[in-house]
Amino acid sequence: MAPAMPNSVSPARPRAGDYLIASKRCELHNLERFLQMGKLVLTTGNLVHRLQRERGATNVFLGSGGTRFSSELSSMVRDSDQQQRAFEQELMEIHGTLTGQPTSTSLLNSIAAALHGLASLPDLRREVRSHSLPAEAAIHAYVERIGHLLTLVFDAAETVVDPAIASMMVAMVNLMQGKEMAGQERAWGSLGFSRGRFSHALSRRMTHLIDAQEQSFTVFTRFADTDLLTLWRSHNGEPWWQEIRRLRGLACSVNRDRSLDTGLADSWFALMTRRIDQLKELEDLVEDHFHRRCIERYTEARNALAHEEKLMESLDESGRAPDPVLVVCTAGEADSENVLPSSETGRRLGRSIMDLVQQQARRLDQVNQELNQAREALEDRRAIEKAAAILMQHQQVCESEAHKQLRRLAMDQGRKLPEVARSVLSMTGLLR
Amino acid sequence: MAPAMPNSVSPARPRAGDYLIASKRCELHNLERFLQMGKLVLTTGNLVHRLQRERGATNVFLGSGGTRFSSELSSMVRDSDQQQRAFEQELMEIHGTLTGQPTSTSLLNSIAAALHGLASLPDLRREVRSHSLPAEAAIHAYVERIGHLLTLVFDAAETVVDPAIASMMVAMVNLMQGKEMAGQERAWGSLGFSRGRFSHALSRRMTHLIDAQEQSFTVFTRFADTDLLTLWRSHNGEPWWQEIRRLRGLACSVNRDRSLDTGLADSWFALMTRRIDQLKELEDLVEDHFHRRCIERYTEARNALAHEEKLMESLDESGRAPDPVLVVCTAGEADSENVLPSSETGRRLGRSIMDLVQQQARRLDQVNQELNQAREALEDRRAIEKAAAILMQHQQVCESEAHKQLRRLAMDQGRKLPEVARSVLSMTGLLR
Repeated sequence: MAPAMPNSVSPARPRAGDYLIASKRCELHNLERFLQMGKLVLTTGNLVHRLQRERGATNVFLGSGGTRFSSELSSMVRDSDQQQRAFEQELMEIHGTLTGQPTSTSLLNSIAAALHGLASLPDLRREVRSHSLPAEAAIHAYVERIGHLLTLVFDAAETVVDPAIASMMVAMVNLMQGKEMAGQERAWGSLGFSRGRFSHALSRRMTHLIDAQEQSFTVFTRFADTDLLTLWRSHNGEPWWQEIRRLRGLACSVNRDRSLDTGLADSWFALMTRRIDQLKELEDLVEDHFHRRCIERYTEARNALAHEEKLMESLDESGRAPDPVLVVCTAGEADSENVLPSSETGRRLGRSIMDLVQQQARRLDQVNQELNQAREALEDRRAIEKAAAILMQHQQVCESEAHKQLRRLAMDQGRKLPEVARSVLSMTGLLR
Repeated sequence: MAPAMPNSVSPARPRAGDYLIASKRCELHNLERFLQMGKLVLTTGNLVHRLQRERGATNVFLGSGGTRFSSELSSMVRDSDQQQRAFEQELMEIHGTLTGQPTSTSLLNSIAAALHGLASLPDLRREVRSHSLPAEAAIHAYVERIGHLLTLVFDAAETVVDPAIASMMVAMVNLMQGKEMAGQERAWGSLGFSRGRFSHALSRRMTHLIDAQEQSFTVFTRFADTDLLTLWRSHNGEPWWQEIRRLRGLACSVNRDRSLDTGLADSWFALMTRRIDQLKELEDLVEDHFHRRCIERYTEARNALAHEEKLMESLDESGRAPDPVLVVCTAGEADSENVLPSSETGRRLGRSIMDLVQQQARRLDQVNQELNQAREALEDRRAIEKAAAILMQHQQVCESEAHKQLRRLAMDQGRKLPEVARSVLSMTGLLR
């Protein structure tokens, strides 16, 4: 796609122009990688979507003692397997990019975790079919596998160093995170409704999952572009939302005395599935915008490169090194009048190159500033998730409790939630 | 040095173990690159040192109307040329690493700027010899070229993603920054003393350079290890420091009526050169520690890799995929008891791999947290320098005035200096 990176054969003597070109090639090469990352995120998102549905159905199946959703489950497993193959196919296609570059240590490791989880899905499904696994354990098993896939998306998103593209990734990551919370809500809700009752713990869990969704979607809307927001709003206007709210009400308000109509399980599953499919629709739109933006940026960058390679040639034809003259720039600009170039062409050529270099430097500076803002949003969400996971493991508490502990810490110390999460992460060593 | 990264030939089917190994290889590969970056920083530092001395002598020469330092200057130019060749040699040696990886867009561009500046040194020197260049313009010309070399060091430091090594780079960058401020102080002071008087502007500039040094050295001491601090303290205890303070006093307190003994130029130059050579000594020590630490980390990482490759082999010999069993980890740890592995060996193997993956994930998380702290310190200093440069160019003010404006902004808005600097950078587009 892009001109190959210059090979390691060194020039007779390093020259400014060569490195300016190399810098532009770097950008081009990066944009190619982002396109691949986008494809990886897309296939991962599709697999997550299938596994989320399979998880939901599994819980209707287990919650109903195997009387409901037996055939639905089988066809969903087929869908998941198909998507898993597509995911593995994608991994193999970008294997070279992933392992050939020393830039994605974390990404490679989270791919390892994801593959490890996927490899044991058949065992999990067998145990579900033979009812030899409690529903709670089954949900945890799916949650964990999907969690690995979402971590993979986080790490892929972090390899993006173009601000416009990165902020789309932030929207994507938060959308997927919120969608997964909705998926967990569907799964736990399916369990409760198909059993006809919600324990106190289960209700608390449902409440947490609803709050967590809102948090993720707030960040999503902050980074989403207009098209996305329009679709987002039209989705939330759907009339059947009322019914979801009603069922949520039943699930979150525990009432020991009265048991619920187990038939609600089907409508709950159907409604939440509609909701989650909406979110998938949004996800695909983000992916589409991401792809288009990458192509645009790639074309821009390639034209810029072509333009400057042309300039470099013209300089070489003129038979002189591209650095023929004293030019005082940046800080010294004010004094450049004091500086007499060896010749007028010299001044022109010298300026033209230094201007390009300065231009590139300024652009990269600004890019980095904008990038930092997108990165922060990504890092905040990530830090919170990871800190919660650590607390859950270290204190053997459930997710909602872990998040509650984090919020309490933040309140007590009057610090922001992400800050607190970061200090938890930096103490990981102590906690283990 | 390290095992080559796996080539793009994809495995039959992607497996967890392969990606765990690939992740470890990534780390190893990174550490190799840091070693090369360290060498680049070292040679750059040496070249900067020579150019700083040349700049100082140039100003005694110009300030004294060519009566002083004529021969010294010639020999210093020879030293600089020699170091410039070493620098270019180093660049060619790591040419493949630099241009072959899509990780250093900024670094490549700052190398272009540095080379461009160096290429025009001969013209600059000619103009100095022929007195066709005002001393101020000559200083600016050197300051600009050295500035490009320091930016290169910044960018090289930023490619380091190992916390222990990164914080050494932070110490290095701030040491070099402070040393350059001292070098500029020597240059402007040489001009003033050899002319026998300090204008109001010149005195203000000296004051700013002294303050700026202190700022950089404060950060340096924050990130320096014990050996460095010991050497740093012993340096500052030297008796001849008193004399530097006395001369600084003369330079900073303007006294129009009385002109200074121009003979002071020589002792000023000698004293400041002693001071700057001390700083170079520190610089070399940092470099030495950096190198040693890289080797240590490299050895650790290679052993870890070897250990895990062995494990993978043993798994492959056992003829089964390294993901034979359901294991619920992290969040689900508490529930893993509910999960029955297909076999005990299965459980053992399954655990051993997932444990390694989890271990790697935890380590990488913590590494990133620590890294962010080093990065911040680097970014703060960088943002301030760049914001000042933009103000200087945009408002045509001198460096001390630009820094004063930043400090005022910070005070008025009750924000930290780095924050203000960042908002200036993010507005670069508007300012130009």
